[in-house]
Amino acid sequence: MARPKKTRRRRTSLIIPHRRTLPGAPAGTIAVDPSAPKSVVTVMAFGPDDFVERQLDDVGTLKGLLVSHPVVWVNVDGLGDAAMLTALGEALGLHALAMEDVVNVHQRPKLEEYEDHVYLVLRMAPWGEAQTTEQLSVFLGNKWVVTFQEEAGDCFDPVRERVRRARGKLRHLSADHLAHALIDAAIDDYFPVLEKLSDELDTIEEEILQRPTRHVPERLLEKRHRLLGLKRALWPLRDALAVLTRDETALVGDEARVYLRDCADHVVQLLDMVESYREIVGSLMDVYLSSVSRTMNEIMKVLTVIATIFIPLTFIAGIYGMNFDPDRSPLNMPELRWAYGYPFSLGVMLATALGLLYYFRRKGWLGEQKASGGQE
Amino acid sequence: MARPKKTRRRRTSLIIPHRRTLPGAPAGTIAVDPSAPKSVVTVMAFGPDDFVERQLDDVGTLKGLLVSHPVVWVNVDGLGDAAMLTALGEALGLHALAMEDVVNVHQRPKLEEYEDHVYLVLRMAPWGEAQTTEQLSVFLGNKWVVTFQEEAGDCFDPVRERVRRARGKLRHLSADHLAHALIDAAIDDYFPVLEKLSDELDTIEEEILQRPTRHVPERLLEKRHRLLGLKRALWPLRDALAVLTRDETALVGDEARVYLRDCADHVVQLLDMVESYREIVGSLMDVYLSSVSRTMNEIMKVLTVIATIFIPLTFIAGIYGMNFDPDRSPLNMPELRWAYGYPFSLGVMLATALGLLYYFRRKGWLGEQKASGGQE
Amino acid sequence: MARPKKTRRRRTSLIIPHRRTLPGAPAGTIAVDPSAPKSVVTVMAFGPDDFVERQLDDVGTLKGLLVSHPVVWVNVDGLGDAAMLTALGEALGLHALAMEDVVNVHQRPKLEEYEDHVYLVLRMAPWGEAQTTEQLSVFLGNKWVVTFQEEAGDCFDPVRERVRRARGKLRHLSADHLAHALIDAAIDDYFPVLEKLSDELDTIEEEILQRPTRHVPERLLEKRHRLLGLKRALWPLRDALAVLTRDETALVGDEARVYLRDCADHVVQLLDMVESYREIVGSLMDVYLSSVSRTMNEIMKVLTVIATIFIPLTFIAGIYGMNFDPDRSPLNMPELRWAYGYPFSLGVMLATALGLLYYFRRKGWLGEQKASGGQE
Amino acid sequence: MARPKKTRRRRTSLIIPHRRTLPGAPAGTIAVDPSAPKSVVTVMAFGPDDFVERQLDDVGTLKGLLVSHPVVWVNVDGLGDAAMLTALGEALGLHALAMEDVVNVHQRPKLEEYEDHVYLVLRMAPWGEAQTTEQLSVFLGNKWVVTFQEEAGDCFDPVRERVRRARGKLRHLSADHLAHALIDAAIDDYFPVLEKLSDELDTIEEEILQRPTRHVPERLLEKRHRLLGLKRALWPLRDALAVLTRDETALVGDEARVYLRDCADHVVQLLDMVESYREIVGSLMDVYLSSVSRTMNEIMKVLTVIATIFIPLTFIAGIYGMNFDPDRSPLNMPELRWAYGYPFSLGVMLATALGLLYYFRRKGWLGEQKASGGQE
Amino acid sequence: MARPKKTRRRRTSLIIPHRRTLPGAPAGTIAVDPSAPKSVVTVMAFGPDDFVERQLDDVGTLKGLLVSHPVVWVNVDGLGDAAMLTALGEALGLHALAMEDVVNVHQRPKLEEYEDHVYLVLRMAPWGEAQTTEQLSVFLGNKWVVTFQEEAGDCFDPVRERVRRARGKLRHLSADHLAHALIDAAIDDYFPVLEKLSDELDTIEEEILQRPTRHVPERLLEKRHRLLGLKRALWPLRDALAVLTRDETALVGDEARVYLRDCADHVVQLLDMVESYREIVGSLMDVYLSSVSRTMNEIMKVLTVIATIFIPLTFIAGIYGMNFDPDRSPLNMPELRWAYGYPFSLGVMLATALGLLYYFRRKGWLGEQKASGGQE
Repeated sequence: MARPKKTRRRRTSLIIPHRRTLPGAPAGTIAVDPSAPKSVVTVMAFGPDDFVERQLDDVGTLKGLLVSHPVVWVNVDGLGDAAMLTALGEALGLHALAMEDVVNVHQRPKLEEYEDHVYLVLRMAPWGEAQTTEQLSVFLGNKWVVTFQEEAGDCFDPVRERVRRARGKLRHLSADHLAHALIDAAIDDYFPVLEKLSDELDTIEEEILQRPTRHVPERLLEKRHRLLGLKRALWPLRDALAVLTRDETALVGDEARVYLRDCADHVVQLLDMVESYREIVGSLMDVYLSSVSRTMNEIMKVLTVIATIFIPLTFIAGIYGMNFDPDRSPLNMPELRWAYGYPFSLGVMLATALGLLYYFRRKGWLGEQKASGGQE
Repeated sequence: MARPKKTRRRRTSLIIPHRRTLPGAPAGTIAVDPSAPKSVVTVMAFGPDDFVERQLDDVGTLKGLLVSHPVVWVNVDGLGDAAMLTALGEALGLHALAMEDVVNVHQRPKLEEYEDHVYLVLRMAPWGEAQTTEQLSVFLGNKWVVTFQEEAGDCFDPVRERVRRARGKLRHLSADHLAHALIDAAIDDYFPVLEKLSDELDTIEEEILQRPTRHVPERLLEKRHRLLGLKRALWPLRDALAVLTRDETALVGDEARVYLRDCADHVVQLLDMVESYREIVGSLMDVYLSSVSRTMNEIMKVLTVIATIFIPLTFIAGIYGMNFDPDRSPLNMPELRWAYGYPFSLGVMLATALGLLYYFRRKGWLGEQKASGGQE
Repeated sequence: MARPKKTRRRRTSLIIPHRRTLPGAPAGTIAVDPSAPKSVVTVMAFGPDDFVERQLDDVGTLKGLLVSHPVVWVNVDGLGDAAMLTALGEALGLHALAMEDVVNVHQRPKLEEYEDHVYLVLRMAPWGEAQTTEQLSVFLGNKWVVTFQEEAGDCFDPVRERVRRARGKLRHLSADHLAHALIDAAIDDYFPVLEKLSDELDTIEEEILQRPTRHVPERLLEKRHRLLGLKRALWPLRDALAVLTRDETALVGDEARVYLRDCADHVVQLLDMVESYREIVGSLMDVYLSSVSRTMNEIMKVLTVIATIFIPLTFIAGIYGMNFDPDRSPLNMPELRWAYGYPFSLGVMLATALGLLYYFRRKGWLGEQKASGGQE
Repeated sequence: MARPKKTRRRRTSLIIPHRRTLPGAPAGTIAVDPSAPKSVVTVMAFGPDDFVERQLDDVGTLKGLLVSHPVVWVNVDGLGDAAMLTALGEALGLHALAMEDVVNVHQRPKLEEYEDHVYLVLRMAPWGEAQTTEQLSVFLGNKWVVTFQEEAGDCFDPVRERVRRARGKLRHLSADHLAHALIDAAIDDYFPVLEKLSDELDTIEEEILQRPTRHVPERLLEKRHRLLGLKRALWPLRDALAVLTRDETALVGDEARVYLRDCADHVVQLLDMVESYREIVGSLMDVYLSSVSRTMNEIMKVLTVIATIFIPLTFIAGIYGMNFDPDRSPLNMPELRWAYGYPFSLGVMLATALGLLYYFRRKGWLGEQKASGGQE
Repeated sequence: MARPKKTRRRRTSLIIPHRRTLPGAPAGTIAVDPSAPKSVVTVMAFGPDDFVERQLDDVGTLKGLLVSHPVVWVNVDGLGDAAMLTALGEALGLHALAMEDVVNVHQRPKLEEYEDHVYLVLRMAPWGEAQTTEQLSVFLGNKWVVTFQEEAGDCFDPVRERVRRARGKLRHLSADHLAHALIDAAIDDYFPVLEKLSDELDTIEEEILQRPTRHVPERLLEKRHRLLGLKRALWPLRDALAVLTRDETALVGDEARVYLRDCADHVVQLLDMVESYREIVGSLMDVYLSSVSRTMNEIMKVLTVIATIFIPLTFIAGIYGMNFDPDRSPLNMPELRWAYGYPFSLGVMLATALGLLYYFRRKGWLGEQKASGGQE
């Protein structure tokens, strides 16, 4: 009973949830998932000397903050509140098509450039047992950054601390640097995920080389699914960041562009790892299959050696177990009455067995392990 | 009897029907399939305040509608009526080569730009058991859209409702927006198809991991065929839409272009899923094959263990079943007359059996499941 | 004896015949194959109102035709006559390198642009048992088209009829339209070849799924060879036509260019099919191999079930076939003299057999078909 | 003893010989292989009416020839003479990096353009048993061509004859045409190599389809190695020639450029064959493996049929070979004393055997060949 | 105990060490690995006539050297000293992001261009048992080169000697030539690594063809891991050098650019080898698997031949070992009392055995080696 559920969970990163926007509905429709968590909106507005952090219940108060502070970061946890999302989108002028994508939470990472803002979709590194990648929508405007997350809980706490405690230069910089800090945090969060996966592959490799169990293919399949999920989350992100670091949009300054190039570089490094691990999974499967074949060979050898030695011997014993009547004719099994009949028959059996053993040894079917052990 | 038919049906998305245009015929010949359904032409003409919907029997009346309404949509269901198709093509100035492709219903998706209209071929999402993708031809002119479908029944009803009820802004927009709405509907119709396929792959995966049957390869083959069909329907569509969203044609306005970019994005997302599923099908096949090998190993182990234990025992029993005459010589099977001959022989058998069992246990051929069960 | 020949024939589309031009010979040498058929040259010269068709024995008469008619088509069947080829090449100013390629009949399709003419190499669709692709060389000049074929017999008869009977507009058009008509006919001739191949793959698939024979790999290999040959004939043709439809040469007018684009589109469609079929051949091989494994499994199961049931039983029978003398000691096989000894031993055998059957049933080695039958 | 040597020889085309230039040595060092053959330098200087051919012992005399003749070809066989190479390099102003590559004879083909000369590395077609590709360095200057070969013996004799006998136009043309003639000869020399390989693959295919031996994988491996070597020799050459045929260097005139384009075309054709053969080798391996599986199946079927028929029969015979004493009890093997006991037991055996045969026939394990023979 | 450690060591080139920079930390943080060796800084400053080499303890003294000498090379062994690294970075104006990458020692090779310096990351050729690739960071400024290595010990001693002894022209050249000399040394150091790997693959191939042991897959897996590591070290380096050899940065002069192009060429050659070896590893695995299958076939043949011959014979012997009482009925085993019963039964056995042998010989299951031996 527990099993199917687990299987389903494992595949989650690949499953397509049912799109809520129906085919044929006007593009730009915000179709909220009724089971999505309630939206919680928090605002951080800051400048070099000033800092406000609060929960936002009325979108109307945002205007004031945008006037009074150089940079405003609006973070939305939970996408269940259509009214709030619509109000927010209108207050900041977010494009309707982008807002539609925000709530259709299984977008590929992509970058959309609109007139006065940029929309970047990322997928956050998969944590927990479910291995799902949560969708992160980042809007970058002139003075503000808006982020939408599917659920509460993220990897941005260090960034928040840097803003709160005025650590680093973040409080002195413009909105594009804040966007960079968030994107950078989201990307770097993939490294420990891949480090863990690397350790797991190591464990599987050791197991395959030492005592492969029948669960290996299943476990490699699961790794393959996860790597496929990671590739799908990172590959389009590479392209999206490449577009962002080209000179096109005025929203990203030259200095932030250099830092974003560094982010793009991290994504390439992650993808390089993912590809390597995918290849390793493939070759581990090969080695596993060859070890299965080898085991089969060994089993067959033992069967063959024992069966082919004893089958002829049993036949010889069978011969002398026949009940032909030696009284009727001197041709009828005279051996049975020879004085040395029994030792002679045992001798024939022994000779047969030794002959076969010699044949097998010459074939190399005995003691393969010892012979090859010295070669490693 | 039912089986071959089913097989044939399943492959339909890949089969090439016989081209009706003979090799060597002049290009631009409209060669109607005699078995194609009769053409039924419906027209929707509308503006912000006005709306006409009717079946079109005489192409001549189209002129008037084009004058009186900002946007006219002509939809043709069924391609069996050469005269009607020719008349329509001439009335709107559709290019002869394009009209030839309209009736040769197994085109790859493509975009052809002519002087005053654009011709886009799509394939509609495969529904029903046959899994065929119906060809949809979309012509976009300055004030009109013409669509040709192989059969009645499509995914455009929501668009029709939006026009009829003046829902959304469609009634206020130009022909390019109508074209977008239709293309968008046709593309989004693929999502539920892929969702269904994802569920089916899930089911197969569970089955493979728990109790693989011999129908797995056949079912994976069928999935592979379907994914190949989907890829062939979507891959060229991506390129066609990319051309359409570039700045080249004046028939598509800037705003509609942004929306079409969104369509193109959906196609990329669909292709991404198709590629992932293709990869999953491949790895499921691998896991299935490894499980077949494993089963074979298990069978061989049981055979080997039982056969190699009993074959030597039977040999020993055979020895003492021989009829050498102990009366003739003290060397002839004296054991038969020993007081403890029988228990002694049973003891030898028992020792042999235990020795072999010990050997097998050391090899790990007994109780593999239990041993590895603890590792998962 | 018949077999090797057949094998050789099948591979023909891949074999490289010995180049007649020796390495180190000056480039541009016309090295005629001595076994090639005699060249037969026919000319069709036509204009809107005029039409001449005759066999050409003296190249000198060509000049007159070129002056008197808007379009002249020279067709050469058979490449065995070096003198004729050289004369023709010189009369029309065909480039020496091109003429060398005309007689080296295993060129890849390609396009060469020279100062005042264009040279296109195609391979004609493979018909007949040999499945060879005949080389077709098309030269397009300002007012003339020259075609070279390896043998008589081609797919151009419908074009010839269109010229002879003044069907369509061909008589009114320039030489580039004639070239298009010929290229179009040659390309469209591939469609029925692929349709036939599709049917054959369907048959093989049905066979694999229902009762795979040992000839499947051989037949799939043959299909793979043929598809490889088709790919090699079509892939470079796509590039050649792409070059021809770009704006570079003045020999092709704008209208003919649109029609050639349509040809190029057909080639892409053909390649798309070829790639799909190549993939299908691959997955059919996979399914075949898995079915071979499955059959093996089934055979092993039957062997294992019967052998492991009867081997222990035979051992028990062997025990009571031993000749230990019960007279010598009460320990020597007292069972033989028990009143219920025989029924008891039969009972032990029955119990052993039932126990093993229960074990096998629990393993799922009995009645797999029935169990899984309900799942499909 | 002979075997390892053969293996080593076969791999030669892939082995990397130890670079003589040590890591960290200044770039441009001429590090001569001490075991390389002595350098033999021959010069051919010619113009339309003039022709000199002689061995060059003193590099100083080269100057005079360069003044007196329009074209000078210096050919060096053997790279063992550092002094001579250095002198030659300085006399003609060859770049130090290029000279370093000349003696490091395992370069990939490449083109280097220097100020007043061009340096092309080719690999000559592999002949002989060793299947090594000899390095050919071609320098093209304004009035001269220099070629360096590892050993004496090449494919340039036809070119030499054309110069000596003033055959063709070569004596009237500039140095770039000479370079073309040499490159053309070197490339065309690959065709017969591939023709031979094609024949060998044909032979292996026939063998696999008729009676596969265990040497097939080894032979396919050798073919794969050779094809890999050919690919490595030709692939970069394609790029090198593509650069040479672009308009960049003034050393190659327009006419020679057309001829070099023809060379490049031959390389593409060769690569196309190499790729096809690589694919064929792969599919032959597949078919071989499937035939190995099939053989296994057949063996298992015979074993299973015979073993499962006779094992139960032997059991029945074993039953009636038991020694239970019928005197002690009427239950003890009364059959032994029945009048029809023996025929009855034989009948039971016969029935068992027939039943099993029927089962096997229904499974299709008997007479597969005949059944499927009719389908081909 | 020793095994897991070895496995871990072998994978090192692929493992991702835990990044020390935490996700969310400001970009540009120098996070030193506490276990990294202490930094040892050495300086070589030189001009045509002047040369200083010393250990640098105080970064402040660097200024003077930069003024007094045309070229300064600062080499840092060990990255454990954050203060020293920061001081050095600030003294030369190295970019903070670059310094962050210097201490995160598992960068992919890459090139970063900053305003007045260029930063190149390479990985040094893997030596020793661990097969790890040490990170080498090269900064090139106007008059200086800075290199950072993870540990002491490198391949630069020949370069140092050339500077110390004024061998070659290095002392007369600018900083870009020094950078080239170092990069060239680092790249050429890969050649012997690949030469060793080539020899090892040769050994494995011989072993597979002659007597494959069960360690082959494991050893091929290890080679595959190493080749993957090499590919990951070299592939991005190719791109990095391609950028460096384009005309973009003024820090590299035209002459040095030619030499760097030569380096890039070496990287391409290395990658070409790596790809070839990867392909060879793949085909060796194929051949190994086919040899495992073949061995299985041979084992099965022996088993089948011996078992199927003796099983029927044993059955016949079993028949005549039955104890039916001939006294009770003339139908009860009359053969037992025939005069020629025993020879007759032996004759039947012999005939059976010969019949089966004939069948097996016709099947080709006897003497395969001899039959095929003549074909090689």
